[in-house]
Amino acid sequence: MTFLVLRDRTGLAQVVVRSGPGSVAPQVPPEETTVEVTGTVTANPQAPAGVEVTAPVITPLTDAAETPPVELWRPALTAGLPTLLDHAAVAWRHPAQKARWEVAAASLRGFRATLDAAGFTEICTPKLVGTATESGANVFPVDYFGRPAYLAQSPQFYKQQMVGVFERVYEVGPVFRAEPHDTVRHLAEYRSLDVELGFVRDHRDVLAVLRDVLAGMADAVRDSGAAERLGVEVPEVPAQIPVLHFADALALVGAPSDEPDLAPEHERALGEWALAEHGSDFVAVEGYPMAKRPFYTHPEPGSGTAPDGAPGGERWSNSFDLLFRGLELVTGGKRLHRYADYVAAIEARGEDPASYASYLAAFRHGMPPHGGFAIGLERWVARLVGAANVREVTPFPRDLHRLTP
Amino acid sequence: MTFLVLRDRTGLAQVVVRSGPGSVAPQVPPEETTVEVTGTVTANPQAPAGVEVTAPVITPLTDAAETPPVELWRPALTAGLPTLLDHAAVAWRHPAQKARWEVAAASLRGFRATLDAAGFTEICTPKLVGTATESGANVFPVDYFGRPAYLAQSPQFYKQQMVGVFERVYEVGPVFRAEPHDTVRHLAEYRSLDVELGFVRDHRDVLAVLRDVLAGMADAVRDSGAAERLGVEVPEVPAQIPVLHFADALALVGAPSDEPDLAPEHERALGEWALAEHGSDFVAVEGYPMAKRPFYTHPEPGSGTAPDGAPGGERWSNSFDLLFRGLELVTGGKRLHRYADYVAAIEARGEDPASYASYLAAFRHGMPPHGGFAIGLERWVARLVGAANVREVTPFPRDLHRLTP
Repeated sequence: MTFLVLRDRTGLAQVVVRSGPGSVAPQVPPEETTVEVTGTVTANPQAPAGVEVTAPVITPLTDAAETPPVELWRPALTAGLPTLLDHAAVAWRHPAQKARWEVAAASLRGFRATLDAAGFTEICTPKLVGTATESGANVFPVDYFGRPAYLAQSPQFYKQQMVGVFERVYEVGPVFRAEPHDTVRHLAEYRSLDVELGFVRDHRDVLAVLRDVLAGMADAVRDSGAAERLGVEVPEVPAQIPVLHFADALALVGAPSDEPDLAPEHERALGEWALAEHGSDFVAVEGYPMAKRPFYTHPEPGSGTAPDGAPGGERWSNSFDLLFRGLELVTGGKRLHRYADYVAAIEARGEDPASYASYLAAFRHGMPPHGGFAIGLERWVARLVGAANVREVTPFPRDLHRLTP
Repeated sequence: MTFLVLRDRTGLAQVVVRSGPGSVAPQVPPEETTVEVTGTVTANPQAPAGVEVTAPVITPLTDAAETPPVELWRPALTAGLPTLLDHAAVAWRHPAQKARWEVAAASLRGFRATLDAAGFTEICTPKLVGTATESGANVFPVDYFGRPAYLAQSPQFYKQQMVGVFERVYEVGPVFRAEPHDTVRHLAEYRSLDVELGFVRDHRDVLAVLRDVLAGMADAVRDSGAAERLGVEVPEVPAQIPVLHFADALALVGAPSDEPDLAPEHERALGEWALAEHGSDFVAVEGYPMAKRPFYTHPEPGSGTAPDGAPGGERWSNSFDLLFRGLELVTGGKRLHRYADYVAAIEARGEDPASYASYLAAFRHGMPPHGGFAIGLERWVARLVGAANVREVTPFPRDLHRLTP
């Protein structure tokens, strides 16, 4: 008696292949061969899904498959990360690996459903851009019909412009970062879940939308059943995500008060604090120093001049990072919305507003106070399923070393 | 008495600004200035949405806006295409222009909803790829950390590999074509709505899914109200889309029987035929010559050798194009699924299977018979709203000449 385990998109089924007196057992094709099976379905509480197929007729739909490069029949994949990545097309067939992407797909559903219900419009903005203005050197250059172009690092400028059209917008798309980071949390191409909305008072209004979006994503993951199959806990998103000011966050983790940013170990400590103090997997840090935020960031009104800040600049910002289980997952905040403020902010950084002309046109012709955020899909999934490295949840990651498969 | 027309994402509202005896009229800020208005809402059947706001208090939220580069107050935009494109951030604020993108956004919703309900999994595949193998020269080269990379022309290879994992997959994403076409229907970056599914008998099974997807897209557009606001007719998708064989299509349009492809004027004639004969805005042409289709195309069994075909090759394919109102909108079909067939097909084109190694691995380890299709979002919207040029429905188009805004 041979047990053949059949896999399709609905799950696994056990096929019992028997040779008895007067009968010859059908040929069982090698692992991963695609087959059509007809037979008798019989209840068997021990079989996957509670049934098995007996008296099968097995028809291969391909030639016999070669032995898979990873052991798909084991309950868990035991191969190392380089092997999994090199053989992604086959390794992702493992039910536990597949479920990790089902978490991602469910998250996208929940993201869009929440925003659609709140009157947001999905947009598609160009990934090929003419200037590398947003953050300088860390862009990939493209040969565009013999002219220089760049891959968009974010849809930031475009989603802001579209606030003038649709008031509330979102986009799911690839973003490209030519940062030579070789860490467990950076990729050269990743999926950014971008949101931008008009008529906000400050970044706290933006954070309230983010809270609902995360709750919608968590609900969709729960409904998909993928987290349960993986045995991982889907976070409860509290009605109010705990918020700490950047200055208080530094004090809490014992960092010097003039640190310009939070280091990964600070983020981990803040994650532990949020869980211990508030029972929350999420914590937002608001008020990041203006000096470390992009020029379009709205300052925290009346927060004074930074010790080392540009003259006239305010010290703190109306921006935030959101940490999920101690990892930076989201950056967001309120943006400037007055044309004159943009000109001043760009000039204060020693840049020429003329090189931002088409972006600034939207502000010259009226724009509501607005803000938004961007969620990194791979980080969300990695943290949710407990993967140490974003590459473990990305079917075909791109990084400093990897451009294939 | 001055009428101020206010625009937000819910529509237009009329504000009546009056100066009477003993009162001074409030200052009315210039067009496009963002304002907050409080006042009394009064029924007025002549006003947009049937109400107007009287006794307003108007608070500008920005400095006075500069005069818009296009006349947004007119019922229709009268500016030429270059002006609209140069001033996209402002021009798209026009309600008629905005409604065109609402057609696109609704289409994306309908696309995903139909496929989610049919057990498909959304995937995200890399847009940076290591080889330019799929179709040679028409790719954009990228400087990837000092190494050559390319922008993906389609998710074809990746969506096929993912059929081995999820069986039914879809992706909405940018694709990049460095084709120096300067036509009303080509863009260098566009949105491709990609679908791929396993366990199909032939391309007719794929066409049946496409039919349901188009019906779901049309329904979502209808529900959005955007088509009604534009005064355009949303197509009825027939239960069976009319299908013509390529050879019969050539005969029907009076083209020589050895033409390898359909010209735009042939497509228009076939669109007229489908409408006249079947009352259908859609017609599928199946069986395109193998010689003109990519190597992964499944041949039409028993269709013999092309007069000028490679030895042993079959003449016709199990692939199709779908025309919508006389424009090629979708390409699809059944693919090869046996490893040996891929090796033979690649070698028959004088290429080396080794350069496709990571793609072919999926087939060496078992793959179901499968097929799929790709819909061009911009063409769908253009045809639906009656725009002559895909650029009219694309907020920030990219083409041979245009990389900004």
